[in-house]
Amino acid sequence: MGLELAIWQGAGVPGDLDATLAEVARVAGEAARAGADLLVFPEGFLTGYHIPGLAPGGLPGVEAALEQAGRIAAETELAMVLGTHLDTPRGLRNSAVVFDALGAEIGRYHKRTLFGAWEKATFLPGDAPLRFDCGGLRVGVAICYDVEFPELIRAEAQAGVELVVVPTALMTPHERVAEAMVAARALENQIFVAYCNRSGREPELEFVGLSSIRDPRGAALAQAGAGPELLLAGIDGALIARERAANSYLDDLGRFL
Amino acid sequence: MGLELAIWQGAGVPGDLDATLAEVARVAGEAARAGADLLVFPEGFLTGYHIPGLAPGGLPGVEAALEQAGRIAAETELAMVLGTHLDTPRGLRNSAVVFDALGAEIGRYHKRTLFGAWEKATFLPGDAPLRFDCGGLRVGVAICYDVEFPELIRAEAQAGVELVVVPTALMTPHERVAEAMVAARALENQIFVAYCNRSGREPELEFVGLSSIRDPRGAALAQAGAGPELLLAGIDGALIARERAANSYLDDLGRFL
Repeated sequence: MGLELAIWQGAGVPGDLDATLAEVARVAGEAARAGADLLVFPEGFLTGYHIPGLAPGGLPGVEAALEQAGRIAAETELAMVLGTHLDTPRGLRNSAVVFDALGAEIGRYHKRTLFGAWEKATFLPGDAPLRFDCGGLRVGVAICYDVEFPELIRAEAQAGVELVVVPTALMTPHERVAEAMVAARALENQIFVAYCNRSGREPELEFVGLSSIRDPRGAALAQAGAGPELLLAGIDGALIARERAANSYLDDLGRFL
Repeated sequence: MGLELAIWQGAGVPGDLDATLAEVARVAGEAARAGADLLVFPEGFLTGYHIPGLAPGGLPGVEAALEQAGRIAAETELAMVLGTHLDTPRGLRNSAVVFDALGAEIGRYHKRTLFGAWEKATFLPGDAPLRFDCGGLRVGVAICYDVEFPELIRAEAQAGVELVVVPTALMTPHERVAEAMVAARALENQIFVAYCNRSGREPELEFVGLSSIRDPRGAALAQAGAGPELLLAGIDGALIARERAANSYLDDLGRFL
């Protein structure tokens, strides 16, 4: 069991669905040529992350763009996790849509922990995990602020998830989240964590990059700087059992706490 | 509200209570002259940490040594947290004894999560926190492996603890715990965390040092290398409210999860 994981630290073209889809297609082609099985995009990649004044009705064309993203997944034979805001009957959502390598939608994850005043005023929080199988591994999804809560990632590990992918939009001055927290989530659960941040700027925000793919010891299999970058890493699920054979946090958690 | 915190990254003289008490007295004097209010020693400092074959009855003199440690606290007018193994009526414990600045014992914390085969075979785990007030701050205690479980430190923060002191005995090849996890515990709870490791060697073990005192953003107020070192830092409790005013993990935890 193992998969080749790709994560795209990029900016897209916020507000321009066609231009952003062109970037999705270009990056998917590059990831496919590099042998990737799964490609992750940042939080709000399709729509842009920070859209001041966003209200219901303010996301025209997103559903059609998602159909096009599914076609890109099928053409490149890549599973994809695509961050996008969604306009749902119950309210606006900050979401990640998962496609399998045939281009079929597996599910839509809605961010459960909303960060800051704008997100809290704009979105309805999700209340459920989304897990799927890819390359023989069990994969879970978290979005940005979600990963800052150890409870949420612990629940993924306890449910058997081996890799958590985290589309994110981490901005200055919060670099410490990328630097200190992502490795801890991987290590304390002995799982893989892929933190996929945006690069570039949006109104009022400067994203910090610093995406990484972490192994079950918290070590970086791949580490980005600030600018656009495609990170690639082989995810060998057997490492999890090997780490837990020496010392299992999940077992000791059940034993003592 | 604020306190001057000192933590001693040292080796003691495992198996020699008198020599170790002399080190306690010397370090307490140094910490007092530096203006400290609270001095923390590593896990098992009084007795030594790794004692192969340790069995009930195998810790003679420890209670008398603890009385002497209390006298040192009183003489130096320092509150102290002293790691020591204890022989209790219910079984052996891996503990930290807390003294106030008058030398009175405040309480005995017993490590709740036992690490590895030797600890699990030797000690009875504790089942309760120990919290006390010092310099206007609420202080909690965790020992070594305890801090690797986010659940345990979260419970401290939710109980109002502002500083968690962590006597520890972290050995090779587990440097990543000191490097990745301690900062995350501070940051994800927006509290101070002081990780006080041993230096030197014991049978079969080499301790890695890397003690640190972390602020509510996870930043190191003081950071040790591998050898003996007294770390000092001012703990300003007002920083916690300032951090949480901008963004409160505990509030958002209650709101969303």
